[in-house]
Amino acid sequence: MNATNADWIAADWGTSNLRVWAMRDDEAIDMRNSDKGMNALASPEEFAAEIARITEGWPALPVVACGMVGARQGWVEVPYRTAPCPAIPELVAVPGDPGGRPVLIAGGVKQSHPPDVMRGEETQIAGILAARPDFDGVICLPGTHTKWVRISAGEICHFQTVMTGEVFSLLSRQSVLRHSMTEGSSDPRIAAFSDAVSEALSRPHQAWANLFRLRAADLVGHSAPGSAEGSLSGMLIGLDLGAARPYWLGEQVLIIGAPRLSALYASALEQQGSAPIIGDTDTATRAGLHAAWRQYRTRS
Amino acid sequence: MNATNADWIAADWGTSNLRVWAMRDDEAIDMRNSDKGMNALASPEEFAAEIARITEGWPALPVVACGMVGARQGWVEVPYRTAPCPAIPELVAVPGDPGGRPVLIAGGVKQSHPPDVMRGEETQIAGILAARPDFDGVICLPGTHTKWVRISAGEICHFQTVMTGEVFSLLSRQSVLRHSMTEGSSDPRIAAFSDAVSEALSRPHQAWANLFRLRAADLVGHSAPGSAEGSLSGMLIGLDLGAARPYWLGEQVLIIGAPRLSALYASALEQQGSAPIIGDTDTATRAGLHAAWRQYRTRS
Repeated sequence: MNATNADWIAADWGTSNLRVWAMRDDEAIDMRNSDKGMNALASPEEFAAEIARITEGWPALPVVACGMVGARQGWVEVPYRTAPCPAIPELVAVPGDPGGRPVLIAGGVKQSHPPDVMRGEETQIAGILAARPDFDGVICLPGTHTKWVRISAGEICHFQTVMTGEVFSLLSRQSVLRHSMTEGSSDPRIAAFSDAVSEALSRPHQAWANLFRLRAADLVGHSAPGSAEGSLSGMLIGLDLGAARPYWLGEQVLIIGAPRLSALYASALEQQGSAPIIGDTDTATRAGLHAAWRQYRTRS
Repeated sequence: MNATNADWIAADWGTSNLRVWAMRDDEAIDMRNSDKGMNALASPEEFAAEIARITEGWPALPVVACGMVGARQGWVEVPYRTAPCPAIPELVAVPGDPGGRPVLIAGGVKQSHPPDVMRGEETQIAGILAARPDFDGVICLPGTHTKWVRISAGEICHFQTVMTGEVFSLLSRQSVLRHSMTEGSSDPRIAAFSDAVSEALSRPHQAWANLFRLRAADLVGHSAPGSAEGSLSGMLIGLDLGAARPYWLGEQVLIIGAPRLSALYASALEQQGSAPIIGDTDTATRAGLHAAWRQYRTRS
């Protein structure tokens, strides 16, 4: 297969990365990546140039994009819809058809009480619902900003964001704890991870003071080698689960995220008696963009 | 007064800064600062050169130093004593009397169960106890790594470190929350601060999810202008107080730290019915170094 058979282009355009797929209906037939995420691009001209560059040699097909490309600091600000709302995102056209073809961007979802926002996850959710239209339960999208989303009757009912990935990254790479981290030791199978999950869930008020112990245990010679990263990861995911308890307790949970992170969340949830299902992010993103694109064509 | 009347030199040598005082007995008669903290110096020669430079023109008096200068990455590693232990630190001489005079460094204190460490705070505690030898209660030293220290019979009984200052700095300057921060709005008098303290103390499991709301409230237009920094500060100090509850509940608390931070902790504690006393850091540091120096001379 090659891209000359494609009939549209799917794009996942986040803060740090851009991924595009040459699509034929709902099937990906070619794929390209770049590190020109929203943070690397400053003006509408740069976004247009990057789309032209990354699709070079592909037919001049319509591009359907989701993610931070639609934020205020992105290419074109696409308004948030307010939850509860249907999962399939509305698409907004970039003015002037850059490079002679339509570029359409999916809007995010906001919530007023309590205030919350998402951009990109709504498309993955639409993709999941395209495959399981009757899904009634909770979708967990772990990442830099983990989202817990209540789904019912094809709608995003309400959701909650926890900054778990970002806080893990700041603490493990930039705080005093970095001296005690061993790369790659956060594995759901190690005892330090599951112990820390339990501790954070049962004594959240104490978790805060447990952070410095990861460093101190090293200094006073009381730490198991290589366990600090697993403990930190377990502690933060345990706190995340504690804050999101109303989302997962007694609910069917579907996890969509990077494989390693999804395995950590699944392990933590299983420890609490939940039986989550793990899905694939890229498949969900493409299916969600396809659903949005189909809805857009039907209406226009 | 000038430094020619001095009879010893006190030095507070931390991670980022060095402060020295020309002392006559327990009185400071001159003072100098530099940004050559432990992190800026790589070898014993550089530490020696910095001491020579910063005391230039002062008599070649003995230097008594506390802080991270005694850590493994510092000038000379001074062992930790194990709590419970007397508050007055033991001094260890830098080999070879650099620059033709003794340089003495105060050792830190460690704790095995749960693991914890301090370097520098023990000297401030010794200074407080020099002025109030019968103090029985808790000393709170807010900062990058806030310490809560139980004092009884002139001894450091046990203590707990919470990484409040470091986490505040990472979240307010480097996370996505930085876009919502207004410099200087963390004031104990604003409602956002005290509301966030209460919320974090009463619902610690939820605090984690409240972090992202500080950003989302801005994006959906629901935030009071300038309140995010106060909310973040209140949230983190509330979590700190929640973890340290056994330290302050029903205890006499003495706070020693930078004035603005001390005021925030005092306000949070007052909200919980505690009546803390605020002391002065520099006075405590010099008095503690003086007590250590006097003890060292008596013994040698």
